[in-house]
Amino acid sequence: MSSTYGESLKLSIFGQSHGPAIGMTLDGIPAGLPVDTEKLQTFLNRRAPGQNDWSTPRKEEDRPEFLGGILDGYTCGAPIAAVIYNKNTRSVDYANLKDCPRPGHADYTAQIKYGGFQDAAGGGHFSGRLTAPLCIAGGLCKQWLEEMGIRIGAHIYMIAGWEDNKFNPLQPELDAIDPVFPIINAQLGDEMKKRINKARAQGDSVGGMIECAIIGLPAGLGEPMFGGVESKIAQIVYGIPAVKGVEFGAGLTFAYDLGSEMNDAYTVEDGQITAASNSAGGILGGITTGMPVIFRAIFKPTPSISTPQQSVSLSRMEEQELIVKGRHDPCIVPRAVPVVEAAAAIAIYDLILSNTQTTRRK
Amino acid sequence: MSSTYGESLKLSIFGQSHGPAIGMTLDGIPAGLPVDTEKLQTFLNRRAPGQNDWSTPRKEEDRPEFLGGILDGYTCGAPIAAVIYNKNTRSVDYANLKDCPRPGHADYTAQIKYGGFQDAAGGGHFSGRLTAPLCIAGGLCKQWLEEMGIRIGAHIYMIAGWEDNKFNPLQPELDAIDPVFPIINAQLGDEMKKRINKARAQGDSVGGMIECAIIGLPAGLGEPMFGGVESKIAQIVYGIPAVKGVEFGAGLTFAYDLGSEMNDAYTVEDGQITAASNSAGGILGGITTGMPVIFRAIFKPTPSISTPQQSVSLSRMEEQELIVKGRHDPCIVPRAVPVVEAAAAIAIYDLILSNTQTTRRK
Amino acid sequence: MSSTYGESLKLSIFGQSHGPAIGMTLDGIPAGLPVDTEKLQTFLNRRAPGQNDWSTPRKEEDRPEFLGGILDGYTCGAPIAAVIYNKNTRSVDYANLKDCPRPGHADYTAQIKYGGFQDAAGGGHFSGRLTAPLCIAGGLCKQWLEEMGIRIGAHIYMIAGWEDNKFNPLQPELDAIDPVFPIINAQLGDEMKKRINKARAQGDSVGGMIECAIIGLPAGLGEPMFGGVESKIAQIVYGIPAVKGVEFGAGLTFAYDLGSEMNDAYTVEDGQITAASNSAGGILGGITTGMPVIFRAIFKPTPSISTPQQSVSLSRMEEQELIVKGRHDPCIVPRAVPVVEAAAAIAIYDLILSNTQTTRRK
Amino acid sequence: MSSTYGESLKLSIFGQSHGPAIGMTLDGIPAGLPVDTEKLQTFLNRRAPGQNDWSTPRKEEDRPEFLGGILDGYTCGAPIAAVIYNKNTRSVDYANLKDCPRPGHADYTAQIKYGGFQDAAGGGHFSGRLTAPLCIAGGLCKQWLEEMGIRIGAHIYMIAGWEDNKFNPLQPELDAIDPVFPIINAQLGDEMKKRINKARAQGDSVGGMIECAIIGLPAGLGEPMFGGVESKIAQIVYGIPAVKGVEFGAGLTFAYDLGSEMNDAYTVEDGQITAASNSAGGILGGITTGMPVIFRAIFKPTPSISTPQQSVSLSRMEEQELIVKGRHDPCIVPRAVPVVEAAAAIAIYDLILSNTQTTRRK
Repeated sequence: MSSTYGESLKLSIFGQSHGPAIGMTLDGIPAGLPVDTEKLQTFLNRRAPGQNDWSTPRKEEDRPEFLGGILDGYTCGAPIAAVIYNKNTRSVDYANLKDCPRPGHADYTAQIKYGGFQDAAGGGHFSGRLTAPLCIAGGLCKQWLEEMGIRIGAHIYMIAGWEDNKFNPLQPELDAIDPVFPIINAQLGDEMKKRINKARAQGDSVGGMIECAIIGLPAGLGEPMFGGVESKIAQIVYGIPAVKGVEFGAGLTFAYDLGSEMNDAYTVEDGQITAASNSAGGILGGITTGMPVIFRAIFKPTPSISTPQQSVSLSRMEEQELIVKGRHDPCIVPRAVPVVEAAAAIAIYDLILSNTQTTRRK
Repeated sequence: MSSTYGESLKLSIFGQSHGPAIGMTLDGIPAGLPVDTEKLQTFLNRRAPGQNDWSTPRKEEDRPEFLGGILDGYTCGAPIAAVIYNKNTRSVDYANLKDCPRPGHADYTAQIKYGGFQDAAGGGHFSGRLTAPLCIAGGLCKQWLEEMGIRIGAHIYMIAGWEDNKFNPLQPELDAIDPVFPIINAQLGDEMKKRINKARAQGDSVGGMIECAIIGLPAGLGEPMFGGVESKIAQIVYGIPAVKGVEFGAGLTFAYDLGSEMNDAYTVEDGQITAASNSAGGILGGITTGMPVIFRAIFKPTPSISTPQQSVSLSRMEEQELIVKGRHDPCIVPRAVPVVEAAAAIAIYDLILSNTQTTRRK
Repeated sequence: MSSTYGESLKLSIFGQSHGPAIGMTLDGIPAGLPVDTEKLQTFLNRRAPGQNDWSTPRKEEDRPEFLGGILDGYTCGAPIAAVIYNKNTRSVDYANLKDCPRPGHADYTAQIKYGGFQDAAGGGHFSGRLTAPLCIAGGLCKQWLEEMGIRIGAHIYMIAGWEDNKFNPLQPELDAIDPVFPIINAQLGDEMKKRINKARAQGDSVGGMIECAIIGLPAGLGEPMFGGVESKIAQIVYGIPAVKGVEFGAGLTFAYDLGSEMNDAYTVEDGQITAASNSAGGILGGITTGMPVIFRAIFKPTPSISTPQQSVSLSRMEEQELIVKGRHDPCIVPRAVPVVEAAAAIAIYDLILSNTQTTRRK
Repeated sequence: MSSTYGESLKLSIFGQSHGPAIGMTLDGIPAGLPVDTEKLQTFLNRRAPGQNDWSTPRKEEDRPEFLGGILDGYTCGAPIAAVIYNKNTRSVDYANLKDCPRPGHADYTAQIKYGGFQDAAGGGHFSGRLTAPLCIAGGLCKQWLEEMGIRIGAHIYMIAGWEDNKFNPLQPELDAIDPVFPIINAQLGDEMKKRINKARAQGDSVGGMIECAIIGLPAGLGEPMFGGVESKIAQIVYGIPAVKGVEFGAGLTFAYDLGSEMNDAYTVEDGQITAASNSAGGILGGITTGMPVIFRAIFKPTPSISTPQQSVSLSRMEEQELIVKGRHDPCIVPRAVPVVEAAAAIAIYDLILSNTQTTRRK
């Protein structure tokens, strides 16, 4: 519930965008897992702001300080706790946002829910900045999954209606993803950037989709009904601000095509059962098939735009024009790519820890 | 986890398609809530099979027997338990399915997960039949929400690519939905039925989408991050067999349009804050805005089709042609409409019981 | 929460004493575990009423009907569901108890909590009868633990101040426990029975203590802080009606003796680390030491006594003499012995399923 | 599970005794609750070490730094996070303890569970120092309960067999407790201190009992079976290091006396239902009666004693004499008094947030 996720692991995320710090605790992790902090930092840097011209110029180092759970480079069995102190805060005055909520933001719903006691500065606990601690937890899980031969990678699939290639569902091209602007087909990136820059120039913003693949998963992972892989992934991915849709495998195509086209025929290859296609996105009945797990998340355009918008004054209960100050990402999608990977890694690692499948054979 | 859902309420669903019974327990419900069993039966009948020519001819009464939790027409505070005995079982021989898994079904993943100990008959615990106890729980929650002025309704939005109208996101037309074939625009139903009947005639199947609206919700419901309304609804909706995608509000459109087009401007109307549009689907930051909550679920085509398919023999580890016997729904979407409503009702009622919003004002 | 217990397994207990049925669902159990229903019945019979002269004459067969989760003698991975229909009900009129609560019972607290909507007959969901489904779940867990070499046994340690021997904490004498009247030192049983019979003759009741031992546990089981073995066992044992105290190992003696007397010195025996004493009751820091886990539960005297008691009329808000009709156990302790074993078995089996200890060595 | 507690609130405790910091996150708390940090510090100081001659001379300020969840003196709805940096660490060399576990400590069980990867310094995550963050969470809950008219107080009931008065179960004397050495009957304190000092002089330690009372609770709080007040309190109190027993109300006396003596007769007083006695300790059927809730916790003697003890070398697998260096509390009981209050406050506040009782009357 709330800012806590997980069955076997317990992730708890805390902090507000302009409060003293943000951070996370991650409980239930086995001892003896190696932690590569340099590799983690490289992962976190993919999400960090201010690195290029399509993201917000707010600069935060996002360098986690570990307060517990790690000793001499290995997990020690105690809860892992990490904190990132906020340094570059309060540069913009947010006082008026508390009275005049930004359309598309949580300003208004937080006001109603918390009765004015919420930390409104920079979106408070609802800020996209809270994805940094999510990436700490996810970056660690990703490392531990890699040790088990499980790889996770995501790419921008769409920005403002312009599509990258989809993953090959049988063999997702994780190694083909551009490390700077994460798409598969590099030729398509210029048009995407153009759309982002055009939106920025207009004081507007654009959304898009991110596609994520998990390869190397064993068959048989996941639990029936509400504990299925789709349920677990969707629950955490919807915890990423701006996500408004999640689909698995063939996704929307399922609503168009015939069963005979969508059922993945089984085959035997090198003495192993596999499938000739992967419309299922690696999941049947909520349980992994052993094929790559593939899903896509829809991101809405950043609601913070600099063009004038119609809002209301909560104190005066009358309409008021709002001009959002400060500079914001015109498109959150590029920086959200590692966040989606992090969310997937946490969900999958929790499923592995919780797995109750039998080892006996009848 | 697994077949258990909820924070404040605890739903547990049990049973296998061809086992002795299916049922559910629902714990954590306040005492003194009225239970209208006749109304519940009417709701369950919308899901029941064998009622018309576009669903499976397997006939089950789906008449729940309450074993606890209800006394003299009111909840008594003890866990609610209900059971439906399976009567019309074992008519088809499922022995061969255990060796030769149906493409698109959980047969293979269950075999791997449970090592051959699973109840394979009729899909066992993975059967769509398990949505009957989900509808018992959801039908009850729906009644209690109605007592609070909260209404839930769903309709077929798409079958095989053919679309019904979308809900008006400001005023979803719950009362316009056809009670027999649940669509908004009755004129579009014939084409949908035609596509279903054509698929049946070909021994094939089709999928689609269901759109659901929840109206009358207060603003401020839901918790931040992983406890948001989207996370809670998605988790349970993905527990419905065949669901492969869930989107909220404008959904896929978010990936195409500009922020200035998708942000819902606030207005003041009759002294109340409202919005001029509802792209957000009634949710910002995971918290309800007070506008209708709207979501859509993608359903894959029923995997059980009578045309020959390529599968494998697990014992012989070689490919084998499979012909699925028995008669099945060529399209599960019409019968799934109340199931989606039930899932939404359970998620929303749990959110209401768990709600921690302040009542003080600053 | 409520009538639900467990982390990796999810036990949900339902039913009221005089409702249609009582039962349980047990989710999260691996597939392929053998189920010996005859052995389970033998276990349940130890709890069943009406078998001898120191228990209530209400006769219930307590023969569970399994509705799901078991196939051909093995768990199938689906939730296990079992039900016992109530047959011998409503023989006593409970209407007046709703207005005039029995001292020492949950009658009054249920009235306040549920506002008069509770099922008051026979104590409803608060009845000791609800320990029957607890014994179904616990009896199954006990079988699965035995397969792993883990044995659980309990005995009456005290009745009305008269003590049986305590277990030898290094080698609890599970095989010495009398199967009919479960004590270790058979010579002490006559005095206990005398005290029970004297209480019955006086229309009164007596309480006592039950001591339970779990042997064969590996070292390293349990989680830190709130997930420790003591926390897990205490939580479920306090779920047994009438339990008012739980202590581990040397228990109360810890409050009297010196650290030098209570610390268990480590020794090496046959190349294995062990301890020369077991004051810790097999648990240090919430984690098992590999020595027998030993705990004791205090049971209060059955509150239902036939001597006149002072109560109140809730409708008239005035004092009223109450004479509880019907015949009741003058001492619940003998029948509670298998219930304590069941609770321990569920807690331990859940801990085993949840165990996150590392397998690597530094 | 593990270092996480709660249903509606989610407490997560992290840190190791000699790691960088200890701390906690507390999620699920309503917004708008006042936070008096000075009052909290006064509460924390009651637990802090080094304040008098019966506690360890390790000095830690235990001054929490809040990283989130509090704004301008009120909770803001976001998770509350607080951290205490460890300053006075590594003064003793703990390297040899990893090979030679202290009897009565978690050294050995942690070694087995975490395979040598644990943080052994100062007991790591198993240290009594982790009760400081428990007191941050509990101190806050205690404040919020006081706002509702609910008071919690505890006193030393026993040290080394020497007893203080028990609380009057009808009117616990919270205001009579000595603020420095927390007992009710001040005349009994000298003998207790004498026993502590004698143990210290001998290089030994003593245990005892703490009694806690909660007054002002409404009737009807708590959930049936495993969600009862006893289960909830016991689970968290057993999370305090050194606790080996918990009993409610008359406790052990229940195992001696007759039902007619232990049942609390109901009376009507000033138009209110109350009871003439409170053997039940304010709880019947797991639900509060409205009378004071009273419980006692047994604490074992501090295992760290300076007299030579027999242990083993884990690397050489042979017996070895151990002399524990450093100075330790000869009796943890006085400093544990606020810890017990904190644990009770968290359990009760969680029960209040989770409470599902009806408000309707039949």
